[in-house]
Amino acid sequence: MKLEQLDTPVLVVDEDAFLRNMKRMQEIAAGAGIAYRPHAKAHKSPEITKMQLDAGAVGVCCAKLGEAEVLASHDIKDILITTPVIGISKLTRMMQIANKAKISVVADNPDNIAEMAAVAQTCGVRPDVVLEVDVGQGRCGLPPGDSVLELAYEVMNADWLNFKGLQGYQGAIQMTASFAERDAAARKAVGLLTETADLIRSAGLPLDYLTGGGSGTSVIDAASAGLTELQPGGYLFMDSRYREIEWDDGNSIPFEQSLTLMASVISLPEPGRCILDMGLKAISTDGGPPAPIDMPGAEFKFAGEEHSELTFANGNCPLKLGDKVTFVPTHCDTTVNLYDRFVAYSGDEVVDVWNITARGRVQ
Amino acid sequence: MKLEQLDTPVLVVDEDAFLRNMKRMQEIAAGAGIAYRPHAKAHKSPEITKMQLDAGAVGVCCAKLGEAEVLASHDIKDILITTPVIGISKLTRMMQIANKAKISVVADNPDNIAEMAAVAQTCGVRPDVVLEVDVGQGRCGLPPGDSVLELAYEVMNADWLNFKGLQGYQGAIQMTASFAERDAAARKAVGLLTETADLIRSAGLPLDYLTGGGSGTSVIDAASAGLTELQPGGYLFMDSRYREIEWDDGNSIPFEQSLTLMASVISLPEPGRCILDMGLKAISTDGGPPAPIDMPGAEFKFAGEEHSELTFANGNCPLKLGDKVTFVPTHCDTTVNLYDRFVAYSGDEVVDVWNITARGRVQ
Repeated sequence: MKLEQLDTPVLVVDEDAFLRNMKRMQEIAAGAGIAYRPHAKAHKSPEITKMQLDAGAVGVCCAKLGEAEVLASHDIKDILITTPVIGISKLTRMMQIANKAKISVVADNPDNIAEMAAVAQTCGVRPDVVLEVDVGQGRCGLPPGDSVLELAYEVMNADWLNFKGLQGYQGAIQMTASFAERDAAARKAVGLLTETADLIRSAGLPLDYLTGGGSGTSVIDAASAGLTELQPGGYLFMDSRYREIEWDDGNSIPFEQSLTLMASVISLPEPGRCILDMGLKAISTDGGPPAPIDMPGAEFKFAGEEHSELTFANGNCPLKLGDKVTFVPTHCDTTVNLYDRFVAYSGDEVVDVWNITARGRVQ
Repeated sequence: MKLEQLDTPVLVVDEDAFLRNMKRMQEIAAGAGIAYRPHAKAHKSPEITKMQLDAGAVGVCCAKLGEAEVLASHDIKDILITTPVIGISKLTRMMQIANKAKISVVADNPDNIAEMAAVAQTCGVRPDVVLEVDVGQGRCGLPPGDSVLELAYEVMNADWLNFKGLQGYQGAIQMTASFAERDAAARKAVGLLTETADLIRSAGLPLDYLTGGGSGTSVIDAASAGLTELQPGGYLFMDSRYREIEWDDGNSIPFEQSLTLMASVISLPEPGRCILDMGLKAISTDGGPPAPIDMPGAEFKFAGEEHSELTFANGNCPLKLGDKVTFVPTHCDTTVNLYDRFVAYSGDEVVDVWNITARGRVQ
């Protein structure tokens, strides 16, 4: 089947670019001798997770328990949940999947640790706990230093919990345009994490697991000799916003735009204007409006939940009814979360379909 | 089960307010002696569609063919697709569901009419065609007047198509704050539609179906004595943006906020700051950021796809780990499209679950 023959709007992946991206990130991690645990929040797909494992990943990250449930039910055996899991109901769900997969979970709060220990005992499961350190993002996490050591003791003292290590992620700098600035900020973040790790080790606690890093800082994180594991997600697809960031030695970022959205012309109300079947329900807008590919002179705007519009400055719309227009999402994560599948293509041929089985698993 | 016991983020509906909204819109249509065909794009739920039919709706509107397929497979028997269906593949899909349900479809283009007639004949199905008139929104649709008559002739002359009537929808004025301005604009829109209808009737073509209208203009549309059918959608839930608009005689809009989003505190990194489990994947942002209910002094911001943050000006966060915070979506349609189900409650008790079966059916 040809790409052109797909019903639209449809989320399509250039498989060749996608596979090159996967290989490049694996090489970055392998070159630094550290583990590669890609973040499934970017794709929410068991099929893609399996490809990443085949490419050398040691396991996978999930942002949500619901994503971990989906992956565990598809025989993914090593999952780190990178966000705290709070409350008896969710902790109980987590222990259920710990029977099928090795589950690690991030935590930053003593009440959560106490509750998790109690639920773990009730369920007869012993999850790995990774303490989150706020290395500059200002989101979840304990401040670097003593408070992390204190909570590490609480985990160590809980019969049914294993203390696995630390997580530090500086999401705020992933798209910093200047490589030098991003480099300095990423090294500072890793430094805060390794200093805290040293503090914990000097207190006699075992600690050899430091996980973190993102697509935008991946080469820096790998070179920092601090992290033992990289958890990038967005590099497979690349938001359009990533395109502008500088890489080392003035290179551009070594990951290619592989994910696009194909829409169709459904109305030609005026000579210089056409309406597309892609509205606010078909592509995310939190990263700004998407840009059409190869449409010089076209101005894009949304026209509601199911429509958008292209206006041509010269008054002549070159498109016919049913013609396809392709867009680059400004934010892939939130666009992927609107769809149930990716259609992979090579050249102009459809070659595969990958299900977004964990779409919408926000709980 | 209590509302408080639900895992979050979760989309919850105040069933009492929701049912009052449903009844009020039915009364507006019935009071004017016109039909009520609510728009399912707002809820995408077969269960809610059936409630609307039980409340007196003559049928349902869908924005997308994929939504119509879902509803037809749930025994909904009368469906108007309010957006053109373009191309052989989609037209063929449409004819398949025309075997199960009475299907009407909006069109505005002669090439589409010719293709639809050919596919209809191939499939042995005779769909109803409703011509869209652009009554001021500037999206799809023919300009009012002669061009509509010309296309009506083409539909009449196609052996396998029925000419059913006209659609005119002025979406751009639904949230105009001033009732007087909204009233004038809505009457102008209905006037353009009825003038075109008169032109078609005076040419001897049968025409007794004029569909359109929205939640914000519903009382005006009903009173205009022009439309024969109202197709409002958002009135069941109400975007927070609708709250500010003026109603007739200085009243406020007679539809209540019934849809909210419940999130939980998952981290307390500082005394004056907490992190919630609701990020950009859990509530839409195209209508602006959502507002927390009953959280005076709290400043809200998103903190990525899975997190958001409340900061308290006085430096004291009153919330504990696991506490619930409720938000009003600024745009219900696009928020609903992120979820697989609504949880309905009455008081503090969960009373029902309605599936959002057509979620993501953008094709």
